[in-house]
Amino acid sequence: MNEENASHARGPIGIFDSGIGGLTVAAAIRNRLGNEDIFYLGDTARVPYGGKSRQTVERYSVEISGLLLAEGAKAIVVACNTASALALEKLRSLFRAPILGVVAPGADAAATQSKNGKIGVIGTRATIASGAYERAIRLLRPEAQVSSVPCPLLVPLIEEGLLEDPITDLVLARYLSPLLEKGIDTLVLGCTHYPLLKTAIARCVPGVQLVDSAENCALALAALLRQESMQNPDPARTGHFRVALSDSSDAFLRVAERHLSLPIGEVELRSVQGSSPVG
Amino acid sequence: MNEENASHARGPIGIFDSGIGGLTVAAAIRNRLGNEDIFYLGDTARVPYGGKSRQTVERYSVEISGLLLAEGAKAIVVACNTASALALEKLRSLFRAPILGVVAPGADAAATQSKNGKIGVIGTRATIASGAYERAIRLLRPEAQVSSVPCPLLVPLIEEGLLEDPITDLVLARYLSPLLEKGIDTLVLGCTHYPLLKTAIARCVPGVQLVDSAENCALALAALLRQESMQNPDPARTGHFRVALSDSSDAFLRVAERHLSLPIGEVELRSVQGSSPVG
Repeated sequence: MNEENASHARGPIGIFDSGIGGLTVAAAIRNRLGNEDIFYLGDTARVPYGGKSRQTVERYSVEISGLLLAEGAKAIVVACNTASALALEKLRSLFRAPILGVVAPGADAAATQSKNGKIGVIGTRATIASGAYERAIRLLRPEAQVSSVPCPLLVPLIEEGLLEDPITDLVLARYLSPLLEKGIDTLVLGCTHYPLLKTAIARCVPGVQLVDSAENCALALAALLRQESMQNPDPARTGHFRVALSDSSDAFLRVAERHLSLPIGEVELRSVQGSSPVG
Repeated sequence: MNEENASHARGPIGIFDSGIGGLTVAAAIRNRLGNEDIFYLGDTARVPYGGKSRQTVERYSVEISGLLLAEGAKAIVVACNTASALALEKLRSLFRAPILGVVAPGADAAATQSKNGKIGVIGTRATIASGAYERAIRLLRPEAQVSSVPCPLLVPLIEEGLLEDPITDLVLARYLSPLLEKGIDTLVLGCTHYPLLKTAIARCVPGVQLVDSAENCALALAALLRQESMQNPDPARTGHFRVALSDSSDAFLRVAERHLSLPIGEVELRSVQGSSPVG
């Protein structure tokens, strides 16, 4: 490893999401790569991205990635399915740092794990409309039958902390029964919030394998850092974990903290106002 | 009326909301003041405001109001309960045009109409946390017992078009039964989306008077224009109705159009990126 790499390998992993949902990805990365520093930036001033246009999601993602690079991030994890689906190409065209989304790792895992090739995908309206999971799954497994359902009510339910609740079960049954009728054996949780609903979802689709994009993204990141020789050189250390938000108010932060056992202490406030638009 | 007033009286009424919910207010104003032009601006690029901090809501409201004034708006209606609760004072300190929110008209109507002085208020998390309705009701009726409940799931349900649905009824029962137990005889629908749920809400709280802030805001605006001699001088004309959004994608627009019988044709796109922050 040359000197530039050695210094660069000490930078934090920059993770961003439109809000707090990406903390499921941060938790999975921390579990797998405990010696890496993590800087998490949640764009809570403009959350959610899920219903917004490609152009707007691209602009926000570029701004937020710029803030992460300014913090010395050695790699950027787009811990937001909507931004991964809509903005990854744009980010890679602008920035040199390795950039990893959550769509490809989840799609690859689903394509590999499904036995009958019938795969369900759930996500926000924007993620589903983008067709990103479908395309990524078909790259590996062209004959796969992918059925996608937008589930716009799940994020609000999760953010209210209704993880075990008859209302949530009723909403899940509404969204998921068409997928069961299609005979899926694998279901991609295509939104970083959804791992918090894993238990309720599993109860609703018994026998179906759940693909958690957070977990698969952490695996892909570990492989990427190895490949680029960008791992933190000290394997014994405990990485720092910093969280910054673009708006001070987020009730869901405490729901996430409780359920993900993340050491979220002081939360920093970052303005996204001043950042200049690119592209 | 002098010449300046006469020219100024021809400007449109500027209405803004964080998104599309304020169209219920636009519809009420159009019903009552059909000869006035209306320019509606929905900040769909940053929707919702309901969970954001005062500082952020103030900044967004100032930016959007600036865009309305640039369109020649003669008065500004803040058709968003969150912005009315958090940003009205800031707007009035910066701009000379008459500025009207939805909180005071709704609160006044509730204080006047309630028989037993027990008044319920439902709204977003930010509106309820601000205590704005409670304060405004107590101004007129200091002994009123005001009970407030944040209902963060209602906007997503409405935006999904689930206006008549068992899931919505279950959610409403959860939110409203504590208010029934308190013996309220009047319920303020403290969010501009909620008039679309009026039927379902009325079914859930039989015998309780519903106060629709959209309707009361239109009444207050008519009085304000009269008082300031700012009515459009031609009572026979049919006003234009223009809608602009800060993001192109909004599925809820068609739900609102269908249920409010508003003539929403072409929707303009307005960038909020370039607008300079004030205050």
